[in-house]
Amino acid sequence: MTRAVTRAAVLSAGSWGTTFAKVLADAGSEVTLFARRPELAAAITADRENADYLPGVRLPDGITATDDAARALEGADLVVLSIPSQTLRQNLAEWAHLVPADATLLSLMKGIELGSTRRMSEVVREVTGASPDRVAVLSGPNLAREIAEEQPSATVIACADTDRAEALQAACHTRYFRPYTNPDVVGCELGGAVKNVIALAAGVAEGLGFGDNTRASLITRGLAETARLGQALGADPLTFAGLAGLGDLVATCSSPLSRNRTFGEHLGRGMSLEETVAVTRQTAEGVKSCRSVLDLAQAHGVDVPITEAVVRVCHEGESPAQMVREIMSREAKSE
Amino acid sequence: MTRAVTRAAVLSAGSWGTTFAKVLADAGSEVTLFARRPELAAAITADRENADYLPGVRLPDGITATDDAARALEGADLVVLSIPSQTLRQNLAEWAHLVPADATLLSLMKGIELGSTRRMSEVVREVTGASPDRVAVLSGPNLAREIAEEQPSATVIACADTDRAEALQAACHTRYFRPYTNPDVVGCELGGAVKNVIALAAGVAEGLGFGDNTRASLITRGLAETARLGQALGADPLTFAGLAGLGDLVATCSSPLSRNRTFGEHLGRGMSLEETVAVTRQTAEGVKSCRSVLDLAQAHGVDVPITEAVVRVCHEGESPAQMVREIMSREAKSE
Repeated sequence: MTRAVTRAAVLSAGSWGTTFAKVLADAGSEVTLFARRPELAAAITADRENADYLPGVRLPDGITATDDAARALEGADLVVLSIPSQTLRQNLAEWAHLVPADATLLSLMKGIELGSTRRMSEVVREVTGASPDRVAVLSGPNLAREIAEEQPSATVIACADTDRAEALQAACHTRYFRPYTNPDVVGCELGGAVKNVIALAAGVAEGLGFGDNTRASLITRGLAETARLGQALGADPLTFAGLAGLGDLVATCSSPLSRNRTFGEHLGRGMSLEETVAVTRQTAEGVKSCRSVLDLAQAHGVDVPITEAVVRVCHEGESPAQMVREIMSREAKSE
Repeated sequence: MTRAVTRAAVLSAGSWGTTFAKVLADAGSEVTLFARRPELAAAITADRENADYLPGVRLPDGITATDDAARALEGADLVVLSIPSQTLRQNLAEWAHLVPADATLLSLMKGIELGSTRRMSEVVREVTGASPDRVAVLSGPNLAREIAEEQPSATVIACADTDRAEALQAACHTRYFRPYTNPDVVGCELGGAVKNVIALAAGVAEGLGFGDNTRASLITRGLAETARLGQALGADPLTFAGLAGLGDLVATCSSPLSRNRTFGEHLGRGMSLEETVAVTRQTAEGVKSCRSVLDLAQAHGVDVPITEAVVRVCHEGESPAQMVREIMSREAKSE
């Protein structure tokens, strides 16, 4: 393949970024992992471990860590972005002039930008000026911790340019990580963004004491509303039945490792939003994305009852119990 | 509605049959619950509890238990069948002459008959001689224990006759149980049968120590193979995206209450089939149905790799680890 990846920059060193750096290095690339905090970069280099975000996982020798974005990006033919969705634009603006001219930009991010309702690949293109075929996204049932432990996992790489998609596939194919290509960037990205919102709802139901019947109903309805929105945005409906739709949604709604599910669970148990942020030390992505997903849906005239309910609970003071009651009774219309 | 249900017979008093008898009684019907063992019937009547199969759940006064099938069926306008799939034909043959001429027959069963590869509604029709519009099926994310505890759950009732479907919907609609109608009997029934097989595979993966990424991949692939088989049999593909397809599959693959998932988990942990049967005191439905699902798929030229793998593990001595390896690598072809 003409576009084979040999040198990758991963920004930045959270749990998914670090895990994906490991995947790339295990597949044979030279990887530079950027960490904003110098002490984290130094610790990763010294200890071969990211004790802050991926404790207990030995990182391969192919990874070098740095706190210098210019050094990370220099000569990279692949730039992997794994940054909180709502700060991507601002972070990337700092680095855009450092991105090599023909490098492929791969988004691992799952969210919709507040205000602009842009998908992450759209923000990447706007900020860097990259053409659509240089921008790819990766999405699937990919809980970072399980992949870091080398449990067999599958994922989807979406890119308008088939050559780049195949080069990316080769660049992250390992014994434990199996990527498939799909030309549907919009569908893959939307599946990843909306699932955080649905997982939050599933967590709320779990926190309230509801079991697997309720969760399964939420997943079923949640996938239906994601697919409706996706179709309105031009996605391929089949994408939602695959790993980047159903697969990612099921993994996230079920796993104790999911931050969005866990965040919802705290809300369901009666904590306020502020208390939950304090306990989990962060605002889950779904709390922010629910608003932008709803904006996007309203702009396209699509009904997204679960997302609406999550917005009411997170931002309008509705009680979690009321939310689940409404979702379960609202279902009446749809089967 | 002309066909309103007022008197229902439920055969027999396992956990799902007993739970559904409670749903019908809570919705206002007079219900007779048949238990083959006289001591169980007597205990249910005396204690208002089925301590063998649904301990701790108080049964409503509208339920009468009996060990006399003729008494149970006399005057019933609804006959609910909840019997192990592989013994339905033989049991129903005993009772067929007792079923009132115009009664609706509702199958709660999930399986495919060995040898004949008949769906349960087909067996019901063959044995009783009932016309297709008298036979209905109920399926969805319906873990019995959660419904018995009155957790909000949704389900699908499929019947060729819209009037009967609506009468059934009214007959089991309670505050905690919400039924939707769907004309697709084949799809609902197939979703319920194949999910036992997929849940067995998911349990095996869990027993081997694999996590939520692997399970989510199995669910995604499992639903795809169910839908392929369904389309070949004339089902509506949309049924599989709904509660009787995806919803039921997710609930069963995730819940510790699922017998098939639990059975698979024992196999994955290294127990033999015989040891697992001894520990769980029964052969899970998926162990039997995997063969008939595979027969059905082969007869229609449909590829069902997960079902095939389950057959190899349950009946041909393949190791569970080998099975999961094969399923995860086989995926390569399909996204």
